[in-house]
Amino acid sequence: MRKLFSKSLINSEGSIRPSNRVSRTPESVIRDILKVINDSDMLSFAGGLPDDSLFPIKDFSEGFALAIRESGAKLFQYTETQGHPKLRAWIAESYYPQSSPEEILLTNGSQQALDLLGRYFLDEGDSVLIERPSYLGAIQTFSSYGPRFIGLDYRNEGPDPSELKAQISRNRSLPKFFYCIPDFQNPTGFSYSLRNRRAIAQICVEAKIPILEDVAYRELNYENEIPISLNTLCPENTFSIGTFSKILAPGLRVGWIRAPEERMRELVVQKQAMDLHSPLINQEVVYKFLISGNFKNHLIDLKENYSRKAKIATGLFRKIFGDSIRFQQPIGGLFLWIEFLDETDTNLLFKTALEEGVAIVPGDTFFTAESSGKLLRWNFSRANADEMETGVKRLFEAWKRLHSIRK
Amino acid sequence: MRKLFSKSLINSEGSIRPSNRVSRTPESVIRDILKVINDSDMLSFAGGLPDDSLFPIKDFSEGFALAIRESGAKLFQYTETQGHPKLRAWIAESYYPQSSPEEILLTNGSQQALDLLGRYFLDEGDSVLIERPSYLGAIQTFSSYGPRFIGLDYRNEGPDPSELKAQISRNRSLPKFFYCIPDFQNPTGFSYSLRNRRAIAQICVEAKIPILEDVAYRELNYENEIPISLNTLCPENTFSIGTFSKILAPGLRVGWIRAPEERMRELVVQKQAMDLHSPLINQEVVYKFLISGNFKNHLIDLKENYSRKAKIATGLFRKIFGDSIRFQQPIGGLFLWIEFLDETDTNLLFKTALEEGVAIVPGDTFFTAESSGKLLRWNFSRANADEMETGVKRLFEAWKRLHSIRK
Repeated sequence: MRKLFSKSLINSEGSIRPSNRVSRTPESVIRDILKVINDSDMLSFAGGLPDDSLFPIKDFSEGFALAIRESGAKLFQYTETQGHPKLRAWIAESYYPQSSPEEILLTNGSQQALDLLGRYFLDEGDSVLIERPSYLGAIQTFSSYGPRFIGLDYRNEGPDPSELKAQISRNRSLPKFFYCIPDFQNPTGFSYSLRNRRAIAQICVEAKIPILEDVAYRELNYENEIPISLNTLCPENTFSIGTFSKILAPGLRVGWIRAPEERMRELVVQKQAMDLHSPLINQEVVYKFLISGNFKNHLIDLKENYSRKAKIATGLFRKIFGDSIRFQQPIGGLFLWIEFLDETDTNLLFKTALEEGVAIVPGDTFFTAESSGKLLRWNFSRANADEMETGVKRLFEAWKRLHSIRK
Repeated sequence: MRKLFSKSLINSEGSIRPSNRVSRTPESVIRDILKVINDSDMLSFAGGLPDDSLFPIKDFSEGFALAIRESGAKLFQYTETQGHPKLRAWIAESYYPQSSPEEILLTNGSQQALDLLGRYFLDEGDSVLIERPSYLGAIQTFSSYGPRFIGLDYRNEGPDPSELKAQISRNRSLPKFFYCIPDFQNPTGFSYSLRNRRAIAQICVEAKIPILEDVAYRELNYENEIPISLNTLCPENTFSIGTFSKILAPGLRVGWIRAPEERMRELVVQKQAMDLHSPLINQEVVYKFLISGNFKNHLIDLKENYSRKAKIATGLFRKIFGDSIRFQQPIGGLFLWIEFLDETDTNLLFKTALEEGVAIVPGDTFFTAESSGKLLRWNFSRANADEMETGVKRLFEAWKRLHSIRK
């Protein structure tokens, strides 16, 4: 085929004028993290990656085959936007007592759920309440809508309700929502106490601020029962964001939103504009596994494995870094949140660590405003014990090297 | 679990304040169309649905099994945002001579490609050039970004280049892009002549207006070779939007954008904010089928089948409606675009037709401004010959009934 114009004749550089949104959307280090996953020399503790050796791929393989035998071409045709009715019913029954399948919308992972809710709620200049630190992917997509972030410090037992109250009365415009991760938060691993859950739900309801509750890690409790969700405390005021990425496998890209039913039609219209619908066959394979006898045991295995790995990781950090750092022992989720007690700048450590062959995420990444610069997030769910030992040692080498430069 | 607040105590109705975007996003009749698909009494010629009896589901089933045997857990882990490298390479080689896999971004169907480009280009109040009529899903998602549409009449051989020139000089602000479907357009089935392709590419390059070329139906030419794409005429100025929905199966949700490479990083960041990545296993199954010996024959079968169905449909309409209507014989794509020559209002016909058990789409749906109200789109790809005959007869009953009411 011929080209009408040679490259040199066209100056198209000036013709592409992206929206303001493009410059507002921060590039995520997650992208770079995902790029180094397949680099065999690099040990990555950066992504929120589940342990893929535990994926039930035999069940998945049988699930695809059986689904196609049972349902055939229907799985590959266009389908309804809201998603697989039986899977929605399963989610409603299992996680949202007293709610119906009509309150569930299936999404392409929880990232699309976050983007959809950002799109649903936010005009440029709106304010939103967000934990400090918070989930990177949420910060990224919300940022693209141009809001003003109001941060609330995430302490061991969740944000301080009186700080929430003060922030609400201090701000002239009512925040559009409060985005929170009350269970084993990414990145801190912290959870809200029951007392804070009740207080925060009540404050948000009274102030008429919808809650966006991200429950991505809720099922990954290693020890105790996790307290009641904000969604169950005040369902009419809550949009709950869930995913099978952490308890099954991220690659199937199945997440969801639980929303007050009278808002569902508007949300579905947005999802339709975004991609018509998510792949039905992936939803069917997830559904088949959930109703199989294997799901319960899979979840028990997963939690035992992650609990064990959390102990290995914290043991290594204590042994190798000693009292240069501090952290809280994770009792759920996928992350260890480490604070350096000396002058270590984790942004510099991140770079030196990459040179040593180990990837971590510096804490600053998770803040919408300035932070101490001494924090880092360490994912313990993916690597095995040997890799963790090598990883922590490499990080220690990087840390020593950083200190020798500083002196 | 206990609820903290009973429904009656909470007035959360007032607390949810959606963005302006929500009221800007039109509800699509596609949604209602998809809802009636499974209603067994209804014959739908409304959706752009491919014939699911031709889906290569045996190959898909083997593809899933083989993919999992070969690649295992990797297919279910997080992966890179841009998508399956080999599938990107296949797309680049097959459809975009002289471009590289780095110029391809895989999306969740072409609807996500459209949404991503709307997101990438549009701020509220920007103007965009669009064919009149145009694809509903594009109108819907672009509308959510609040642009001003500048329509260009789509005639038998594409828009008139002098009208394009006039519209550009008439408008004070330079349109952000020209969205077009030069091959067997949805809804008209029309295509651009070679002359119009050359002229329109040249005008857009000179005016520095990027082209968003939607090639969803390009491979579905029943007779002649389709002329050169705008993308090949001016790749530096074009974003090409493609999909496997029409030539393989929509349910896998695999589409793509071909973009100038220097823009890819920004596009990937938006995709990342939207949903991190699309499911890798679906991309792998598509790839396996494309490189199998079966793809070429599948495409030949598909075109023969649709060509035959187009003839059946037009034969039925000629026989039953006679000279009350006119249309152009489709030589590609999935649609018949019918104009009533009397006073028939197809918006009313649409409703009466539903009562008679047949779904169509009234032409007005595809216009961003007023239209004649006498047009309708008829999809001929899905139904078999018997269903088509029943469908056209039902439509005729509806049409007669509508006329008897008017008298």
